[in-house]
This record gives sequence, structure tokens and C-alpha cells, in this order.
Amino acid sequence: MKGVNFYNVKITDPFWKSKQELVRDVTVNAVYNRFNDTGRFDAFKCDKNSDVQPHIFWDSDVAKWIEGVAYLTMTKREPELEKIVDDVVDNIEKNRNKDGYFNSFYLTKEPENIFKNRDCHELYCLGHLIEAGVAYYKATGKRKLLDLMCDYVNYVEKRFKIDKDATFLTPGHEEIELALVRLYEVTGEERHLDLAKYFVDIRGTVDNPICDWTNHKNSQSHIPAREQFTAEGHSVRAVYFYSAMADIALKYNDNELKNACEKIFDDIVNRKMYITGGIGSSSAGEAFTVPYDLPNLLAYSESCAAIGLVFFAKRMLLLTNDSKYASVIERILYNGFLSSMSLDGKSFFYTNPLELIPYMHKRDVSVNTSSQNLPITRRQEVFECSCCPPNIVRFLPVIGELLYTHDENKLYVHQYIDSESEIDLNGKIVKIEQKTSYPRNGKVQIKVSGSDVKLYARIPDFIDTYKGEMENGYAIFDLKDGEEIELNFDMTPRLVESNPLVHENAGKYAVMRGPVVYCMEEADNGPVIRDIRIDKMGSFIESFDEKLGVLALKVSAFRRKPTDKLYTNISSEREKITATLIPYYAFANREECEMQVWHLAE
Amino acid sequence: MKGVNFYNVKITDPFWKSKQELVRDVTVNAVYNRFNDTGRFDAFKCDKNSDVQPHIFWDSDVAKWIEGVAYLTMTKREPELEKIVDDVVDNIEKNRNKDGYFNSFYLTKEPENIFKNRDCHELYCLGHLIEAGVAYYKATGKRKLLDLMCDYVNYVEKRFKIDKDATFLTPGHEEIELALVRLYEVTGEERHLDLAKYFVDIRGTVDNPICDWTNHKNSQSHIPAREQFTAEGHSVRAVYFYSAMADIALKYNDNELKNACEKIFDDIVNRKMYITGGIGSSSAGEAFTVPYDLPNLLAYSESCAAIGLVFFAKRMLLLTNDSKYASVIERILYNGFLSSMSLDGKSFFYTNPLELIPYMHKRDVSVNTSSQNLPITRRQEVFECSCCPPNIVRFLPVIGELLYTHDENKLYVHQYIDSESEIDLNGKIVKIEQKTSYPRNGKVQIKVSGSDVKLYARIPDFIDTYKGEMENGYAIFDLKDGEEIELNFDMTPRLVESNPLVHENAGKYAVMRGPVVYCMEEADNGPVIRDIRIDKMGSFIESFDEKLGVLALKVSAFRRKPTDKLYTNISSEREKITATLIPYYAFANREECEMQVWHLAE
Repeated sequence: MKGVNFYNVKITDPFWKSKQELVRDVTVNAVYNRFNDTGRFDAFKCDKNSDVQPHIFWDSDVAKWIEGVAYLTMTKREPELEKIVDDVVDNIEKNRNKDGYFNSFYLTKEPENIFKNRDCHELYCLGHLIEAGVAYYKATGKRKLLDLMCDYVNYVEKRFKIDKDATFLTPGHEEIELALVRLYEVTGEERHLDLAKYFVDIRGTVDNPICDWTNHKNSQSHIPAREQFTAEGHSVRAVYFYSAMADIALKYNDNELKNACEKIFDDIVNRKMYITGGIGSSSAGEAFTVPYDLPNLLAYSESCAAIGLVFFAKRMLLLTNDSKYASVIERILYNGFLSSMSLDGKSFFYTNPLELIPYMHKRDVSVNTSSQNLPITRRQEVFECSCCPPNIVRFLPVIGELLYTHDENKLYVHQYIDSESEIDLNGKIVKIEQKTSYPRNGKVQIKVSGSDVKLYARIPDFIDTYKGEMENGYAIFDLKDGEEIELNFDMTPRLVESNPLVHENAGKYAVMRGPVVYCMEEADNGPVIRDIRIDKMGSFIESFDEKLGVLALKVSAFRRKPTDKLYTNISSEREKITATLIPYYAFANREECEMQVWHLAE
Repeated sequence: MKGVNFYNVKITDPFWKSKQELVRDVTVNAVYNRFNDTGRFDAFKCDKNSDVQPHIFWDSDVAKWIEGVAYLTMTKREPELEKIVDDVVDNIEKNRNKDGYFNSFYLTKEPENIFKNRDCHELYCLGHLIEAGVAYYKATGKRKLLDLMCDYVNYVEKRFKIDKDATFLTPGHEEIELALVRLYEVTGEERHLDLAKYFVDIRGTVDNPICDWTNHKNSQSHIPAREQFTAEGHSVRAVYFYSAMADIALKYNDNELKNACEKIFDDIVNRKMYITGGIGSSSAGEAFTVPYDLPNLLAYSESCAAIGLVFFAKRMLLLTNDSKYASVIERILYNGFLSSMSLDGKSFFYTNPLELIPYMHKRDVSVNTSSQNLPITRRQEVFECSCCPPNIVRFLPVIGELLYTHDENKLYVHQYIDSESEIDLNGKIVKIEQKTSYPRNGKVQIKVSGSDVKLYARIPDFIDTYKGEMENGYAIFDLKDGEEIELNFDMTPRLVESNPLVHENAGKYAVMRGPVVYCMEEADNGPVIRDIRIDKMGSFIESFDEKLGVLALKVSAFRRKPTDKLYTNISSEREKITATLIPYYAFANREECEMQVWHLAE
């Protein structure tokens, strides 16, 4: 299957269009300003006398921001932002080593330690600079950054593949692998693809652990890629690597790798994924843990991992036509991804908890060190390790490419978003119009013109029954040129439960409306929301929250009355209340307060 | 009010008698053996060339063991154990400083640092040695240890109260205060009591924190004792200190201190105590945290803290005649205290969790350091910090003293245990016979002979209604010499819920039968016990578990069926099962498995 270019998909849906405009109008500048304040842009000057100490991963932060700028530029030029990018590129050209190597940290602080520490993100930074170079070339036609990175890649090929004299075999933090595939797609140079495959192939053979408090699983280096069937270790590294595995499986028609990817994906979505699509449940190693271990209050669920899982799923859609991959993308889009940015587009979550109890942050009253790694309760403008904000900047502009895949005559519709698209189907330009306010409303109209098309329309995973011809979760329609179909999905809010093996959610229920996970906040419901029991017999009333600009839900519920006693014999006395829920993605946009995704019900 | 001596209370109840015999036959030797293996007894030789590195608190471990031996000796001599004690005492005499100071760690390792580090347990060790000396003198008439400690106390009085040249004002770990009161009770020397009061009075004035990662709350040094109204900090230190505050309140008729004690006690039992009577919910600082913060899986709930809370409550019963203090003692006896020792008397819990999920200990698969301080799942024979096992050894033999308090004509019955006692009531020896198998059975017969007596019999806190004359939770009876009363308490198992403010237990219920908290174990119920929902309409069937020797309960319950999916729309499909519960105190006596105190019910 083939993907589509986001710039051929014009999103007209007010919700997503406004999010994309927010990135252009606010977020890209907000991230730039904080990165500039903290010295991340100046770091490219490689001034050894500077007071600012660059971090080993700063280059990647700026690279992702550049990639985002490139995507914005593809639909509308942004001269001021381009100027900033060009300055960065000039600094790379000026300060790089003769052999092509560039890394602002190592060139400035430890030139003697180049390629000596597996955990120091050099190839990770290079990978992001490659992705930036590819995107910026495509967007502007300017190829300086691309060329600089090609030189750097030649040097990497020499050190890692030909001379093999780097201190480590594979990088501790994957990213270079998928970046080399993207580089190959624009340069057409087989050596770039081969180098990507080389890094995938030798991973999990002999190498050093990434640091002394992790084992090889944390960097997916415990066994070779083709023998990996479960999701392990640092969740961002993992999904970046699995994305590259899927890339190589596709490019080389490698069934062993494809099989590993399918098994790993199933392990994630059937055992290790939050209902929001978040992954990586432990702060220790920012990692996947054991199956069904999904703590809410202590969730790690990094924003970058959610984005990375979309990357992985997107590639799996090219390898296999199975709606489960598109369903996970939808789950992430409306929940675990969107939660990472504030409604005003200025601040961000690195970790995305599924529950907040602010006083838990103050529990250790007599000690200065906390006993628990609780996630932060408020989004921040920048982090010391600020990988997530620019990932959002480069991700939101391109969500159009998640809507379709196709081959010569089949067109798969994966996401329902009001839009107009043009796709080259076997030489014919096919126009696809989606008219819908999904998921606000379950009605979707799809009109195809320019050719007859075999259309595969995804039946969302929350729809238990669909009558009609289906294949791998897609309804099949033979459409004549100009014909239109209409789908209607039930958007009635519903209670969802998790697998009995998820200890954390025993006896608890989530509220979903279509693909959107809802949460309760103290701001709407008063304190101690954990004790609120949703009336299982109650109906959800939809109610637009003007202040947040989201569709809230109201439902009858019960809560216990206050008491002075700590323990009492069971009582059935309850106060009847109306509980208010808002979309999870909108949480923490008011005062600091309790929040939860999993609720009692009775 | 006055207390009673345990040796005047002959416990004939098979349950508690067997526990006391277990201490004599097994535990006292088991603890000795492990302490001897680890060098704790040899440490008293103060051999500077020894390979073994004594810990700063080792003297206190042995002292508590000696105290336990003394109590055993009071009812039956134990020549072999006495020989061991006498050797220890000889070593103290031989190796102490001329000024009376003794501490095996400081004398051997850092003689230059005596009384220079507030957190190094010197006065804590002295306190325990005083308690040992007092008990051993009472038991055997041998007063060498007592005299040595009197010398040491003189030196402490000089350094801390007269010359004030120690580096700190008050010890980081309290214990000396209550020990000095006990010393006074046997020596009659006012200066001993005054020194106790001195240490209580100056606490919370200016002093150094106990270590750099705690604040003054951790050692109850944040404000003066009389201004402390909430339970704060390290829970063992706290209850030892509160016990001393109650002692001083009693001896000096100090209403300000009494008021502080009452308020602190209420703060504990109404806001900071597990249903088992365990206290100190965080491993960070082994401390009390914020009100209603009572995590089950991560409970700290140290055995010594439970014992210390009995000490505090016991003193409060002398200060006030309120049944709440006796009820807490009962709660601890049957739950949080008993859980600390294995049924075979050989191994111990330091922390007493209210929930165990063994696989949680293996969740951090890709890192070597865990993200959480989970309590151990199995009792151990000895710990590096092994304060709890000898505390059990010195506590179980004397539980008889918890049964009664009295003045000239009033006799309070606090605990119901089959027993025969003799109490001197205003010069008359009164014989009290309790005939009961409480709590197995709710019938209690109490016969008093030797005098007319005004009897106050505690109505247990789990009895919601009692008809008859009552005062502060006690039923009042005017008994003629030789008269007998019979009480009948309902022992029907019941569901208990916690205050809605306890987030951890929202939607969950504990099962209690009389004062005994029950738990579910995977050993009886199969894995994933968190998903078991007790049938609220079901009746509990009592069933004796021959293997554990405990009264188990069976109740109808529901559990969900296994599924492959991680998230599904709500289903009411349930499998009906019979759940088995055993007394909490008997958990972890079979294979390592899941355990929980708080259950779902529907």
C-alpha cells in the first residue's frame, strides 16, 4: 500500500483545522521562544566560551522544530521562521567537522569523546536533523541541510559499518534507522537504506547497555529485532525502532520483520496501552513494564511515545490492511496525543497521567525527597528534556497523511475528518470529499470523483456490530465515479471496562463517546472525585462547555456523605448528584485539581 | 487510674496462650540465633579488631530481646537465656567508659564522636537498655544492668541537662524519655523523672534536623510537645514520644500535655491509621503523611509502630477512661501486630502491607532500580535494621497488662480474653475470672470475687447498639462479691467501608468479624483477586482452615471472565464463585501470592 502526502489532504474540519492553525499561530513560536531563551538555538554557534551548557539532545529539539517549520511551509511560506532555520543550517555548516560530523554538545564540550558513549544521543540527534533536512528540502527546495546530513551519514557509515571503530555498534536511543529510510526516499541512494537496515539488523547482537541502571531491554538490545515479539524498554526508543523495523520490512519485503512488528504491536495494544493510547507506564527507564500494569496516578505515558506509536501504526497500515492500526491512531489522536498540549497551544505535558490527586504531591510532609515519581499536574512551556513540544509541532501539521492509504484501485479510509483530498490512483487524480462532523456526530459522507474506486471504510473499534460486507474491520464499497456513500456511527456515550487482569482498573469504568475518552475533574465535580459512582442506569446528557470549548457530558451519579469516622460498617446511604465529564484531552486547562479517567459506577 | 502487672493476669485462652508459648519455645531463640549469627551479641565485646561492623542501633536490638527474656523469666525461669543476658551485662560493665557511657558502635568505631550526631541512636539504645535493666531486675532481682544504666543516665544528665555540652539537645529517635519514666518507677529517683520531663519539654525548641533529607517534623521537633496536635513524622519515633508525653502528663498532672496527647491520638485514629491499626503510610521517612493517605500496596505500617501505638493507647487509658483507646489496642492486637510474625513464630514483617501483588515487584523489567518502594512479600528471619522481631519478643509476654485498669473501686475491663487475674483493689485482692472464647464467640462471662466491684466492661467499637447503662463506651455493672455478668457481642462477619476521603479505598470494602480484619489470598481464590466482587447480599459461612489453624470465611462473589481484549464496552457478564477469606494476621504463611484487605462488592 502507499501513503498520501498531507499537503494533498486539505483538512476543513473546524476542530482539527483550528488545532493546525494554533500550531502555526502560537505553538511554533511558543516553542521557539522557550528554546531560544534556554540557549538551544545559540548552541549551534558552538561557542566554547559560552556560559550555557548544551545538553546532548538539544540538536534534536531544534531539528524537530525545523521539521515542523518545514511542514508549515509546505502549505504557506513562513519567511521569518525560514530565516531562523537558515541561520541554524549555516551554523551547522560553519561548525561541523571536516569529516561531516556535527553535534553541538560534543563539538563544544567533549570533541575527544565523539562516538564513545552509546547513551549520548549523537545518532538520535543526527536522525532528527536528517528528518529536518528531508522535510526542509521538500518544503523549500533548499538542500543545504540535506547535503550536510548526507556528508554526516557518509561519516557514520564509515565509522559504524565500514571501519567499525566507534565504541558502540548501535545507538542507545533509536531514531537514525527510520530517518535513514526517509533520507533514502528523497536521495534514492541504496546505501542510505542499507545503512538503516544494517542498524536494524545488528541491534540486539553484542553491544553495551545504555547505562548502568538499565539492562539491554531498555534499549531494545536484548535480542535481534526479528526475535522480538513483545514491546520492551524505553517506550519512545521502542516505537521509533519498531517504526524502522516496519520500514525495513516494507522496503525489503522482509516477512520475519513484519511478523515481529505484528506481534509487538499486538503486545502493546492488547496488554500495555492506556485507554488514551498512551504507552510506557513506568517512570523508571520511561519504560514498558509487565503486561496489564497500567497505573493511572503514576502513569508515565510520554507524549513522544504516543506520537511514536502513531508512526509505528501508520507504517503497519502500509504493511497490512488491518483496521486495528488505524483505530489505535484514532485513539491516540483524540486522547493521548491531544492531551499533551494545552488548549491555548502554549504549554505541554511530557507525562500524561490518567489521574491527578494534587495533594498526593504533598504527602511526604516530613521528608524532602518524595517516595513516588508522580507526574506533574500542570503543563509546562519547556522542560529540561524538552523532546515533546517540538514533536507536537512536527506532528499536528501532517495528520492529513493519516486519513488514507491506497494501491492501484483500492482506497482505504482510515480516519473520518471533514476534508478534501486528491490522490493519484494508478495515474488518475481522484478527488475525495469527506463531509462530516465526526466524532461530534456519527454521520460521514464520502464522495469520490475522477475514477471508479473500491473504497474500504474503517468501522471504528467502538462499533460492536456493523451489517454489510467487511474485511479486516473495513466496510467495502464499489463506488462509481462521482458516487457518494453515507455511514452512520453510534456516538452514544458508553461505559468501558478494562481487562480483568488490569489490577488498577478493577471495579472501574471509563466513559467514552466515540473515540473520545472523557474524564472527571474536581473543577466541575468538587473534591474527592474518586468516590463518585456513575449511575449505570443513567443517560449521558451532552452539554457544550463554552469556556473550554468542548462537548461535556452530564450523568446522574452518587457520592457518599462526609463522616468523621475513618471506618464504619457498610452503609447504602448516598447523595444523588450530577457528575460532569469533559474530554480527557482538555484536562488541566483550569486550576490545579483532581482528575480521573476511571470511575466507580453502580 | 492504675494499670495491672501482666504476671497477675494468667491468660488461659488457647489462642493467646499458644502465641505466648510460641515466643518462649520458638521466637526468643529464633531471634537470638539470627542476632548471634549477625554479630549483634559479640558486638558487646567491643573488639576493635573484629571484622564485624556493628550498626549504631544494634544495642537496642539486643536490649529489647533482653527485656523479652526478663518477661518470660517472670513466669518461668530460663537459665540458659539468663546466662546469655548475664554475659551481655558483664560485657557492658567491662567495656563501658569510666563516665558510664556505653554504646558498642561508638566505643568500637568512633569514640571521638560520642553525642555528636543527633540521628545516631545513642539515647535510643540507652532507652532500650534501661527498659531491659528495669525488667531484668524485676524478673531476677539482679540489678547490675540497672545500676550500669543509672550510671549512664547520670552521665547523660550531666552532658545534656547540666553542662549542656552535647552537640544536640534532644535525640533524633525518641525512646529515652519513656525509658526514664520506667527507670523512675523502679528507682524512685525524682531526677530520673525530671530528666524525662526535661527531654520532653525542650523537644521542638531549637535543635538540628535528624538528617539532610528530612525536616523537623520527621523527629517531632518542629514545635514544642504541648503545641503538637497532629501525628507527624517517623511513626515509631512519634508513638514512642507520644507515650512519653502521656507518661509525663500523668506523673505531673499536666493538662496541656494531656490535651496534646488526646488530639494527636484522635488525629491518628480518625485520619492516619490503617484498618489493621498499622500507622506510618510512607516508606519515605517511615512516616505519617497527610490525612486519609493510606495506600495499601505501598503501605509501610511498621510492626514497631503498631506496638508503639499500643504503648501510647495503654498510657491514654490511665489518663482517661475512654474505650476508644482500648478499641485501638484490640484492633492492633488482632491485626497489625499479629501480622508481623509468621504462624510458626520464626519470621517477621518489618512493613505490613494491606495488599500484595507479587508481579508488581517485577514490573521494572528493563531497569535495575525499581520505581517504587514496595513492601516485601514474605516475612524474614532478620533484617539489617531488625528492630521489629525483638519488639515482638518483649511485647507478646506482657499483653495481660492490657486487660484491665482500675482505681480504688472501679475496675475497667478493656480486653476480653479467657483468663484468671488478681488485682489489688484498695487493699483487697480481687479475683477476676473471664470465661470466653472471644472473639471466636461473642459470649463473655466475667466473675469477680473478693470484694464488691463497680465494673466497666468495654463495648467493642464494632457493636453499633448496646442497651444498658454506658459511660465512654463502657457498660457499667455494680457487682457484688462473687457475682458474674454475661455479655454477648454479635460476631457476624460484616462489610466495613472507609471514610470517603480515603481515595485508596473508594468503592471498596473490608471484611471484619468482631475485631478481626479478614483478607483474601490468591492461595485460596486464584489469581487477580482485585477483580473479585463480594456479593453484598451474600452471607458469610464460617469454616475452620485446619492447615492454617484459623477461622476462614466463605462468601458468594462474582468475577469477570477472561478476555483477550484490553478495553471492552461494559458487560454485566459475571462468573459466580465462592470467595474465601482468612484473618489478615495469617496472610503470607503459604506460597508467595496476591493478598488484599479491601475488596470490591456489588
